[in-house]
Amino acid sequence: METKIIEFEKIDLKNPILIEGLPGIGLIGKIAVEYLISELKAKKFAELYSPHFPHQVIIEKDSSLRLLRYEFYYHKGKKDLIILTGDIQVPPTDSYGHYEVVKKILDFSEKYGVKEIYTLGGYSTGGKRVKEPKVLASGTDQKIIKRFSGIDPSMIFREDIGAAIVGASGLLLALGKLRNFTGLCLLGESSGFVIEPKAARSVLHSLTKILEIDISLEGLEKKIKENEEIIGKLQKFQEKVIEEEINREKEREMEYIR
Amino acid sequence: METKIIEFEKIDLKNPILIEGLPGIGLIGKIAVEYLISELKAKKFAELYSPHFPHQVIIEKDSSLRLLRYEFYYHKGKKDLIILTGDIQVPPTDSYGHYEVVKKILDFSEKYGVKEIYTLGGYSTGGKRVKEPKVLASGTDQKIIKRFSGIDPSMIFREDIGAAIVGASGLLLALGKLRNFTGLCLLGESSGFVIEPKAARSVLHSLTKILEIDISLEGLEKKIKENEEIIGKLQKFQEKVIEEEINREKEREMEYIR
Amino acid sequence: METKIIEFEKIDLKNPILIEGLPGIGLIGKIAVEYLISELKAKKFAELYSPHFPHQVIIEKDSSLRLLRYEFYYHKGKKDLIILTGDIQVPPTDSYGHYEVVKKILDFSEKYGVKEIYTLGGYSTGGKRVKEPKVLASGTDQKIIKRFSGIDPSMIFREDIGAAIVGASGLLLALGKLRNFTGLCLLGESSGFVIEPKAARSVLHSLTKILEIDISLEGLEKKIKENEEIIGKLQKFQEKVIEEEINREKEREMEYIR
Amino acid sequence: METKIIEFEKIDLKNPILIEGLPGIGLIGKIAVEYLISELKAKKFAELYSPHFPHQVIIEKDSSLRLLRYEFYYHKGKKDLIILTGDIQVPPTDSYGHYEVVKKILDFSEKYGVKEIYTLGGYSTGGKRVKEPKVLASGTDQKIIKRFSGIDPSMIFREDIGAAIVGASGLLLALGKLRNFTGLCLLGESSGFVIEPKAARSVLHSLTKILEIDISLEGLEKKIKENEEIIGKLQKFQEKVIEEEINREKEREMEYIR
Repeated sequence: METKIIEFEKIDLKNPILIEGLPGIGLIGKIAVEYLISELKAKKFAELYSPHFPHQVIIEKDSSLRLLRYEFYYHKGKKDLIILTGDIQVPPTDSYGHYEVVKKILDFSEKYGVKEIYTLGGYSTGGKRVKEPKVLASGTDQKIIKRFSGIDPSMIFREDIGAAIVGASGLLLALGKLRNFTGLCLLGESSGFVIEPKAARSVLHSLTKILEIDISLEGLEKKIKENEEIIGKLQKFQEKVIEEEINREKEREMEYIR
Repeated sequence: METKIIEFEKIDLKNPILIEGLPGIGLIGKIAVEYLISELKAKKFAELYSPHFPHQVIIEKDSSLRLLRYEFYYHKGKKDLIILTGDIQVPPTDSYGHYEVVKKILDFSEKYGVKEIYTLGGYSTGGKRVKEPKVLASGTDQKIIKRFSGIDPSMIFREDIGAAIVGASGLLLALGKLRNFTGLCLLGESSGFVIEPKAARSVLHSLTKILEIDISLEGLEKKIKENEEIIGKLQKFQEKVIEEEINREKEREMEYIR
Repeated sequence: METKIIEFEKIDLKNPILIEGLPGIGLIGKIAVEYLISELKAKKFAELYSPHFPHQVIIEKDSSLRLLRYEFYYHKGKKDLIILTGDIQVPPTDSYGHYEVVKKILDFSEKYGVKEIYTLGGYSTGGKRVKEPKVLASGTDQKIIKRFSGIDPSMIFREDIGAAIVGASGLLLALGKLRNFTGLCLLGESSGFVIEPKAARSVLHSLTKILEIDISLEGLEKKIKENEEIIGKLQKFQEKVIEEEINREKEREMEYIR
Repeated sequence: METKIIEFEKIDLKNPILIEGLPGIGLIGKIAVEYLISELKAKKFAELYSPHFPHQVIIEKDSSLRLLRYEFYYHKGKKDLIILTGDIQVPPTDSYGHYEVVKKILDFSEKYGVKEIYTLGGYSTGGKRVKEPKVLASGTDQKIIKRFSGIDPSMIFREDIGAAIVGASGLLLALGKLRNFTGLCLLGESSGFVIEPKAARSVLHSLTKILEIDISLEGLEKKIKENEEIIGKLQKFQEKVIEEEINREKEREMEYIR
């Protein structure tokens, strides 16, 4: 079996921008992107399935079951968008699967004429609470880094040489760079142990500046409160994942090798 | 090497229904399906072999040895059936193999004109003994869920949104759904730690209502007692597997991510 | 990269019989086969390399290095033989690799007209010392099992239904059976913790009866004493491997699932 | 996705010699090769990317991110050189990936007319400090071993039969040997726990004798001092890796199996 993307409708988009927010540290990328989808009333048009995802299925509200998956939404506006989120990331034990799935996403993006990619996620402070979470940014190239320097005071371009970004947010841009995609990776500071809507808000704030779109971020915390039960489950689940991620990241911080 | 299915005879079946019962929690699916095979005197017509199974072989009664395998039986009746059971499931460390093997089973089913799939298994209560095991049902779509709602008072359609089903019983339906198969997953409640014939009985009871077949379930417990020694071995083996499954399931219960 | 077999010379063999003895419990298969090679002055004619072997190389006597490998020897006689041994088995974490490598060996055997396969190995008693090690035999089919019943009083056809044979010795026969090879698996009883030449001797004794060849087994223990230092290293290494094998086997003994 | 090599420029080299120094025990190979690159002012002309590398990206000085990669440099001189270094080795859990990546490097080398390969690395003494680190050498064949015997008093051809070399340094030569490459593996003695410039210096000294090139090694220790901070990070990271390597190596020392 191969990783494959099923499209529900063929849509016509004009050089859409790809926004990615998959589960990760603090669930920040996913929360930010889901809020964006809901605010923009973006419409789902494709799903990605992969044998590199865990061999389990999920029960839905109506007693139906479904595979784990990624979802592609689109929004037509001043700038057309493709927004990617999903249930999970490929397990950390399957590096090959990570590369494979990201490759498929880039193939798909290319087909739709995507040239810019923005990936959203969290940056773990290793447990330290952050009052005003900054957004740590890195990019595919100097041109895009300069283009967006200074547009948001809370967005800081990273200087921690040799630091690592683990998973889809990094791979999409670094693999994409070899295929002439340009883009930024925006990571919201997070203690890592609880879901901090503030970090998702910071990341979204930077993104709206970049995309020059106008959406209210007021609803973000409210939305999160409404879904407290589900988020509670997510939180406990994430704690485990995060713990592992942090441990792994600690090791990786020492991994500057070049 | 590839996963492959060897057919002993070409049989002519009329839109057969696929019933799956592979080893899993409480061995419920496998016990139920083996009883069904024996009661219906279903005949084996195909075997599946896979390099994703463990690299070991099994000694038979006559000192011969054979690969680990899945077995396909058929039964012609008011409704034709293909019944699938096997020695093992793909190991939990090989998600890719799970998807691959399930894909082959769906290819095979398609070839025979299968449109409906019923998968049988256990639902671990995490050690809690259950006097009257319920059957927790989920399905590929609303049509089939509605069709069978209320046909068996002990069969309850699940409302635990975000819960996971691990392994072949879930994957067959969720992958099958993408290829227009319809079907239900029936999981009998089980403490998880011992083999509970009652749970297999509950599952089989729901299945006979669904299939509108008439088999006596009286023999089920007797059958199990006759095979006590083998079941004893199975029990010890299963305890290990179940322990791991439960631990994994606990984590997964928190895994609602969408 | 693929598993591949490099042939040094094209030899003409008349329906050769394949004898396999790779490292495993008590090193019995490997010791038996290496003694056979040396007594028959069998000549190496091919080597197998695989990316499923560990990613390490070995230093030779002359400071040269080489890949881990399997070796094929041939012997022309009343019955032509192909004898297979090697440095290692595929790691237990790579089931797929086990199937893949065994498939290549069967392809190679088929090309040379092999119809019969005898695999040699050890059977762990779980630490219990055995004074007169028996040979536990199993086979691909009733015909060959009957053919050799009673030819050697110390060779006993197994009745431990559901027991497992792990690794190449089992897979070669069980996968081979699907391709019309016939053969026996001969496992010498061994405490599992030390190398017991006696077990290798028992296995070889049964094999000479089967092959109707006449070689002295006197040299076996002498040979082993000569190589005590190397065997000492092997012993320590094997102890680890065996411990793991035994633990795994214990679990597998309970694994009768059918 | 496949392992692939991206070339920036097509260069014309005359039977270049491949020098490899990837991260490993004591970082010796990488340090030696990077010093060589800097002294020779070698120019990068190609990069290798692989889905068998970890699924993470690295932040650069200018806030840009990039994939983990291997780098090929060239130097034109009396003898043309291709020098290979990189961020990481394929993880020890992915033997298949090791073989795959090494195969691609050999394909690439063949295309450029490489016939000789020298691989540099460390040899762990298991914690024992070494005052004057020796270079332990092994080779693809007797011809090259004899050719370089005695050219450097501190270079000793290994006699530890059955010892293992883990990773790219060994595989490049042993896989290469099957394709008619010739070469030596030079491992500098190292306690294994800290980076010892002396070991890298010993290895480079032997290499300059082999290549008959004249570079000052004075700068090596100075260079290392200049980069103390980065090396500090590397050291901590390496300690972990080394610990694992040593444990694995201890087991492997007992692994003489032939």
